[in-house]
Amino acid sequence: MTEIDRRPRIVIIGAGFGGLAAAKALKNAPVDVEIIDKRNYHLFQPLLYQVATADLSPADIAWPIRSIFSKQKNVTVTLSKVLDIDTERQVVLHENGESTYDHLIIANGSSHSYFGKDHWAANAPGLKRIVDATEVRRRVLMAFERAELCEDPEDQARELTFVIVGAGPTGVELAGSIAELAHVTLSEDFRRIDPDDARIILMEGGPRILSAFPEVLSAKAEESLRKLGVEVRTGVMVEQIEDDHVVAGGETIPASTAIWAAGVKIENLKQWLGCETDRIGRVPVQPDLRVPGLPSVSVIGDAAKVAWKDGMDVPGVAPAAKQEGKYVGRRIAAEARGEKAPAPFRYRHMGSLATIGRNSAIISFGKINLSGFVAWLFWGLIHIYFLIGVKRPIFVAMSWFSNYVFRSKGSRLITGMEALRAVRAHVPKRR
Amino acid sequence: MTEIDRRPRIVIIGAGFGGLAAAKALKNAPVDVEIIDKRNYHLFQPLLYQVATADLSPADIAWPIRSIFSKQKNVTVTLSKVLDIDTERQVVLHENGESTYDHLIIANGSSHSYFGKDHWAANAPGLKRIVDATEVRRRVLMAFERAELCEDPEDQARELTFVIVGAGPTGVELAGSIAELAHVTLSEDFRRIDPDDARIILMEGGPRILSAFPEVLSAKAEESLRKLGVEVRTGVMVEQIEDDHVVAGGETIPASTAIWAAGVKIENLKQWLGCETDRIGRVPVQPDLRVPGLPSVSVIGDAAKVAWKDGMDVPGVAPAAKQEGKYVGRRIAAEARGEKAPAPFRYRHMGSLATIGRNSAIISFGKINLSGFVAWLFWGLIHIYFLIGVKRPIFVAMSWFSNYVFRSKGSRLITGMEALRAVRAHVPKRR
Repeated sequence: MTEIDRRPRIVIIGAGFGGLAAAKALKNAPVDVEIIDKRNYHLFQPLLYQVATADLSPADIAWPIRSIFSKQKNVTVTLSKVLDIDTERQVVLHENGESTYDHLIIANGSSHSYFGKDHWAANAPGLKRIVDATEVRRRVLMAFERAELCEDPEDQARELTFVIVGAGPTGVELAGSIAELAHVTLSEDFRRIDPDDARIILMEGGPRILSAFPEVLSAKAEESLRKLGVEVRTGVMVEQIEDDHVVAGGETIPASTAIWAAGVKIENLKQWLGCETDRIGRVPVQPDLRVPGLPSVSVIGDAAKVAWKDGMDVPGVAPAAKQEGKYVGRRIAAEARGEKAPAPFRYRHMGSLATIGRNSAIISFGKINLSGFVAWLFWGLIHIYFLIGVKRPIFVAMSWFSNYVFRSKGSRLITGMEALRAVRAHVPKRR
Repeated sequence: MTEIDRRPRIVIIGAGFGGLAAAKALKNAPVDVEIIDKRNYHLFQPLLYQVATADLSPADIAWPIRSIFSKQKNVTVTLSKVLDIDTERQVVLHENGESTYDHLIIANGSSHSYFGKDHWAANAPGLKRIVDATEVRRRVLMAFERAELCEDPEDQARELTFVIVGAGPTGVELAGSIAELAHVTLSEDFRRIDPDDARIILMEGGPRILSAFPEVLSAKAEESLRKLGVEVRTGVMVEQIEDDHVVAGGETIPASTAIWAAGVKIENLKQWLGCETDRIGRVPVQPDLRVPGLPSVSVIGDAAKVAWKDGMDVPGVAPAAKQEGKYVGRRIAAEARGEKAPAPFRYRHMGSLATIGRNSAIISFGKINLSGFVAWLFWGLIHIYFLIGVKRPIFVAMSWFSNYVFRSKGSRLITGMEALRAVRAHVPKRR
């Protein structure tokens, strides 16, 4: 901390779970905080797959950053995209100007990684942003619309085959949710096809799904998925993804819809900071979450490589990002007040959970493993609890409850005119 | 009706209020119904302005056509855009094929008319579709974001000036709603600007706002708007709309946001049917809503010019479209059953209503004129009642209630990357 008269300027890049937690932890500190994000909202990413499968609307899981901080007067929000960081001058360069910092907190999250096959992105969108979710929703719903207009059984089968690549929580939740969409929600909506004929194939390169969970829960989850009609294939590497087929393990599967849930990467940090990054672009940080050699820069959330235990890193999940944000915020607040620096960061693992459709979930919480309906209820409660941190959880709860009771999907809208062009491109003319 | 063995085929173009009512009236008739629409949802258009001002989400006011008819097995839904109609062969040509009809019901609604100045569309979007509403929302919210990034007071004033052209119900409701967004909802969200400084200007070419209402109610509405801080200008013709100013009545008003709520037109019908249309493209129909000379074609809703009383036409409002759809459905059902044709169509006017912000509305119902808070409550009840016809009105009611009580705008999301480009284009770099 330099001995100057003005209040220290804290710049936070990104308003995800980590960035928000850091800003909140600085609430009563004698500092000025600037949050820079390229979007005007905070996104509750763990529920994004439910937007993709039309269970929730974007507004159910996203909140304007400004309204989250309207009462916290030491926070300024700048809607802009970061272009570079000048660590010498301590300045963030962004599309709408420059922001000087005394402390910089980088919490810019991760994006999809196609393991070097970036051309797969067009045929297999991932699920990180709201536009991704509405795009996946559009593709899934349009596949049924195209199938309804097909004459040829082979064309219909191709339209009704959905391949999900990657069986982490997102892939598993997505597969379960698409299976329910096809086999329950849409079951009476079509006249020429039977949505029950839809095939949902979940591919995983590793030996089992949900590898971060105990083996017994992976097995339970796989059983639940099979009951919903999902074909689970483990130990299969995807070799090719085209717009009308996927090649995996030497087999060609005709499928007009593929969704990517396999890998993540962190962009830009090596270039911006001139520091070391790991294979996926994360910055290895010190125990106090600072970047080695750059004491005024901290990295948190998905973008940080933080040592945990048994040689493992802290996982890239929302609770970890929140804990790291809170820690860095408190550390900087203590410094600004001239107080003693807190002890090094320690991650407290809260457990893992994933849901499989309307009735089943799996939960690993310390020594407790739960699965089935009780776990599903618990999953819902946990998510409502976490949403309370932001706003209007009651609406999300009501949307779920209504979907559960009425089996309706109120958000099943295909917006934008691309819908039609997609039909035109794929379906042969009929008389 | 030809003397053939198969069931008559009824094709309906458009799933708005008229098209839905017609299909529902054919529920138990011995006919096959095909609804052709270029979108997969029915839109509750009277509340579209609330999506534009972030009170509601698109999914609150739109419902998948397929789910509305999932139980009515004589209805098929085709997602396709109509290209032409062959009235000789009785065939509708659309992007995904052809549909043969015995009876055709045209219910394709209206679009914006810029009175020949179509180049205004880019600078002053209208409000007919969901994409229009999210575009208007984006422009309004981005204007505040740009103002927050401005240094120059003149630039700030231009960004914070909103011009609404046309003071029918949509223009009035939009102006009231933007005024509340600026003066109430956003009041604490910014640090460098005061959203209270925003100017909302409502322009009307005619001598008074809401010309379809009794004069006393127009005056009440104008008073309510002024209380909300809206500048109302009547008898003013707009001469020019550019991206940074509007010229009206000889005066140049610097304003970076303009919204069009002035005129409608009906497209394509003259060309498709080879029949007469009026100045705005409507088809004058017979008392049984058939097109003169084309007994197998009926036109309903905004697209039909239907004589009412005192030389007036039936107004282009949702209840009129519903009544016409129901009438034509019943007429065709009677014919299919070999029953007597019903008496000619008679429009029952249910009254007019418009709301101005959170506390005020005006209602004209027969000889009853209501205004103020009681009218506002009545307005809410009426809309909830009409929504029951579709689905989940409880959610809309709760969204309203929550917005009312908490003054929150949960749907205040700027989606898509265009947001940023807009900032970049308009705002001078700052240090």
